[in-house]
Amino acid sequence: MTRQELIQRIQQQRSYLCVGLDTDLNKIPEKFRSMRYPLFEFNKAIIDATRDYCVAYKPNVAFYEAYGSDGWKQLEMTEAYIPETHFKIADAKRGDIGNTSKRYAAAFFEHMQFDSITVAPYMGEDSVAPFLEFDNKWVILLAHTSNKGSADFQLMQEDGVTLYEKVLEKASQWGNPDNLMFVVGATHPESFDVVRKIVPKHFLLVPGVGAQGGDLAAVTQHGSNDDCGLLVNSTRQIIYASSGNDFDRAAAESAAAVQQEMSRHLSSIGL
Amino acid sequence: MTRQELIQRIQQQRSYLCVGLDTDLNKIPEKFRSMRYPLFEFNKAIIDATRDYCVAYKPNVAFYEAYGSDGWKQLEMTEAYIPETHFKIADAKRGDIGNTSKRYAAAFFEHMQFDSITVAPYMGEDSVAPFLEFDNKWVILLAHTSNKGSADFQLMQEDGVTLYEKVLEKASQWGNPDNLMFVVGATHPESFDVVRKIVPKHFLLVPGVGAQGGDLAAVTQHGSNDDCGLLVNSTRQIIYASSGNDFDRAAAESAAAVQQEMSRHLSSIGL
Repeated sequence: MTRQELIQRIQQQRSYLCVGLDTDLNKIPEKFRSMRYPLFEFNKAIIDATRDYCVAYKPNVAFYEAYGSDGWKQLEMTEAYIPETHFKIADAKRGDIGNTSKRYAAAFFEHMQFDSITVAPYMGEDSVAPFLEFDNKWVILLAHTSNKGSADFQLMQEDGVTLYEKVLEKASQWGNPDNLMFVVGATHPESFDVVRKIVPKHFLLVPGVGAQGGDLAAVTQHGSNDDCGLLVNSTRQIIYASSGNDFDRAAAESAAAVQQEMSRHLSSIGL
Repeated sequence: MTRQELIQRIQQQRSYLCVGLDTDLNKIPEKFRSMRYPLFEFNKAIIDATRDYCVAYKPNVAFYEAYGSDGWKQLEMTEAYIPETHFKIADAKRGDIGNTSKRYAAAFFEHMQFDSITVAPYMGEDSVAPFLEFDNKWVILLAHTSNKGSADFQLMQEDGVTLYEKVLEKASQWGNPDNLMFVVGATHPESFDVVRKIVPKHFLLVPGVGAQGGDLAAVTQHGSNDDCGLLVNSTRQIIYASSGNDFDRAAAESAAAVQQEMSRHLSSIGL
């Protein structure tokens, strides 16, 4: 999906919601557990219930990988089921030396048809570049993550510049706003102003709203740009909105409520 | 595998060689390509040929993942085939927020029975800690990697301390020499002296000897400790020693030559 197509989708749906598919066998309704492909069947119902309210889906690969090749098969089935109208994010946080990152890119961009993959920057340019060589595919690079441990290394400073700022600066020379986004956690609203000074044009993928405590209004106020420039992820608040057999209706209601709030925020920033 | 068992294996085999199983369909002999499980069948032959000369095997997950669930099945088969006498490393470079890292740990330590997994430190303590909660399982944390891009962020300095030194310092408070190793590339022999000042006891996993240009004698001289404390990886030099049907004999000869050199180095450091 191109940048222009993504921007159009956001304007048409009046939403910049990404639904996280971190599907956990222990948290989905009982009835799925006896099925041959429980993770996929649950995801299918969630996608059917929420597709009108979001513009992106983001399966976190760990939740499939935990079941080995069988889980991977359900990840493949899930990717294939996500409508072409929606931006597909493989939340994989991969990254390795060049010839190895090429193989990860083959997994997510050739074997499967994800639009984007999250990548960890620790190993530097040659670990990121192979993912940037595909037309209309995206790297979503970790910058300032939403978790407590983000303070351990990401805030290290050299000459007043933090590691995550250095990641933004260096990586924006490797890619451009058409093939590179950054992860900035909603739990650090103060860092969005800093981020936007360095990368005014790039899209940001924002986890941490909802269960992790981030605030959507603050994220939008400090993080948006003229194209919206945000994909805000919500997972637990939507896919586990109910643990009963009404889970899909509850997910739709929860996603619709977020979409309505997002529509208001889009108006408030003139979109 | 415990630290003591690993040290005993090194002394018995007179080797600290780890064979990398970065198995690429385009590089293995023609005859495997028509088989149902070509990556596994090739690995099986390599393991049979080299097991007497090495103490560890390290499949890089990307090379399996490139083929999706079918590749993952062959990774599972490979893990199951590696003898219990050998230390099993999943070279996966994973790392995510706490509840997600737990799922990655489930994949490699419960669904499969790897002894260890490589982890990227960018997201900090809560992304690493879940992997340290398993008895006799190991985290192998990226510190100073062997690739060119390692200079982009790992050498950033705060008050004279580089990022990779900070990773060594912080992480050695999260784990201990019985459950935590570090990756230090053979392409930076000068950094081993620095590393050993910070983590004198920990094992180091050393990639970059052979195809990437690192020197085994220099690595051993600067990086070893009283227990040897090194696992030196070699991949292409061994598994692709010949592209013909004599690939297994060639792999055995190449591994045996490295083992003989390692045996001499062990004698020279009094082991």
